[in-house]
Amino acid sequence: MGTFTHEITVRFHEVDRAGIVFFGRIFEYCHVAFEEILRAMELTSVFERENWGMPLVHAEADFKRPMRMGDRIAIVTTIESRTGGSLTFAFEVLGAEDRQLRASVRHVHAFVALDTMEPTAFPPSLDEGLTRLEL
Amino acid sequence: MGTFTHEITVRFHEVDRAGIVFFGRIFEYCHVAFEEILRAMELTSVFERENWGMPLVHAEADFKRPMRMGDRIAIVTTIESRTGGSLTFAFEVLGAEDRQLRASVRHVHAFVALDTMEPTAFPPSLDEGLTRLEL
Amino acid sequence: MGTFTHEITVRFHEVDRAGIVFFGRIFEYCHVAFEEILRAMELTSVFERENWGMPLVHAEADFKRPMRMGDRIAIVTTIESRTGGSLTFAFEVLGAEDRQLRASVRHVHAFVALDTMEPTAFPPSLDEGLTRLEL
Amino acid sequence: MGTFTHEITVRFHEVDRAGIVFFGRIFEYCHVAFEEILRAMELTSVFERENWGMPLVHAEADFKRPMRMGDRIAIVTTIESRTGGSLTFAFEVLGAEDRQLRASVRHVHAFVALDTMEPTAFPPSLDEGLTRLEL
Repeated sequence: MGTFTHEITVRFHEVDRAGIVFFGRIFEYCHVAFEEILRAMELTSVFERENWGMPLVHAEADFKRPMRMGDRIAIVTTIESRTGGSLTFAFEVLGAEDRQLRASVRHVHAFVALDTMEPTAFPPSLDEGLTRLEL
Repeated sequence: MGTFTHEITVRFHEVDRAGIVFFGRIFEYCHVAFEEILRAMELTSVFERENWGMPLVHAEADFKRPMRMGDRIAIVTTIESRTGGSLTFAFEVLGAEDRQLRASVRHVHAFVALDTMEPTAFPPSLDEGLTRLEL
Repeated sequence: MGTFTHEITVRFHEVDRAGIVFFGRIFEYCHVAFEEILRAMELTSVFERENWGMPLVHAEADFKRPMRMGDRIAIVTTIESRTGGSLTFAFEVLGAEDRQLRASVRHVHAFVALDTMEPTAFPPSLDEGLTRLEL
Repeated sequence: MGTFTHEITVRFHEVDRAGIVFFGRIFEYCHVAFEEILRAMELTSVFERENWGMPLVHAEADFKRPMRMGDRIAIVTTIESRTGGSLTFAFEVLGAEDRQLRASVRHVHAFVALDTMEPTAFPPSLDEGLTRLEL
């Protein structure tokens, strides 16, 4: 299956007391990669037009090497699995140049109707978008 | 006029690459003090019940001394001025123990109708609340 | 084994585009609980006095119910396991009043020497502190 | 004098309870523009090689129009003034496409020796870099 790569730069305010990226930031970084996938699918404003959202039900990360201010980071996203009611993204967070693994991250999304927050089926517009991106 | 004091603790993830609180965090700290004022006025969920919001139109801070992880900080809030359409809070950010000034902050809010984002008058429920707190 | 409970309030800036707490914030919340444990052990400034840190090597969360602005949240921490070189915290994130589970979180820390970032043994000052807190 | 332009995208987690960018984020956005200036001057890792920092002593923003998730934003930076001991940046935060002003921001930096946090003179490597960028 395909991959989607997005690059970011580690910022001054993302580094913590220990001089490396605060671990919780990794989930922001990977969500940004996800937002870029939505953008590539032209679904960025979908939450304003359609009645579904895809909240996280599980998130996890294994941290392998520290990231420091100014580091250029590549986030390589694949779809690990999908069911009728959920979608799991796997993110490899790499140095953009050295290609060394900084962290492995997994996000599991469920689908809900935004008005009721009740479970809903896999949204057709998302299904189409993923197919178009070959993900 | 009266003051409203709220204390916070500086957190690990709020400290930046230079080992002190990231300057932009001061605006989060002061907004938290403002949220505690809303809570004391029983207006926390007002944005769900009434059709007004109070976006910031101006914010400024003078930074006097660094804040470090674990520091206990007191935020002393006063109302600097108010007009029919705006409200200005002044925040003195002090060491909770040494009472030394860390930063002076000012937030200017305007009032808008949440549905249109157009200007609206000073909300009566806020006016009442401020009176009750003697602010 | 014992538990350690710390309460926090969900803040305006922690809520995301979907109107609920941004999922990645849960790791900040649980790290704050951990910082309060360090404080209770009088180890807050340990990183300035001793040459060890305890970076996260794994973090995960299962999200059960949304958290909203103003919610009062209790974080109940236990030690799930420890080895010579690692320490695993389990956090139950509950409504402070309704006691309903919002999220279950797990943080796995390793120990490193701060100067070299190489693995180091379980720090005696931490061991003592955990014993004192009956964790 | 010259300008330096950096573009960013508004992210999901940067939007607050009111559905627009949390006001305090503007200071992160403008600091990111500043970091890109440091990078263009090849000074990103200067804090590791030279003994000076440039903490903020004043920051202010006037908010003109809301920013929303997915908005593409241009930050146009100029140097408003400089003295022997300080440097003031002015940032115009614009829609990258509509060029409408979202916010006007000003950051005043002082220079300190990192080891003592005492004032220090305008650093020669920064002076050179600004000249090279024609700022």
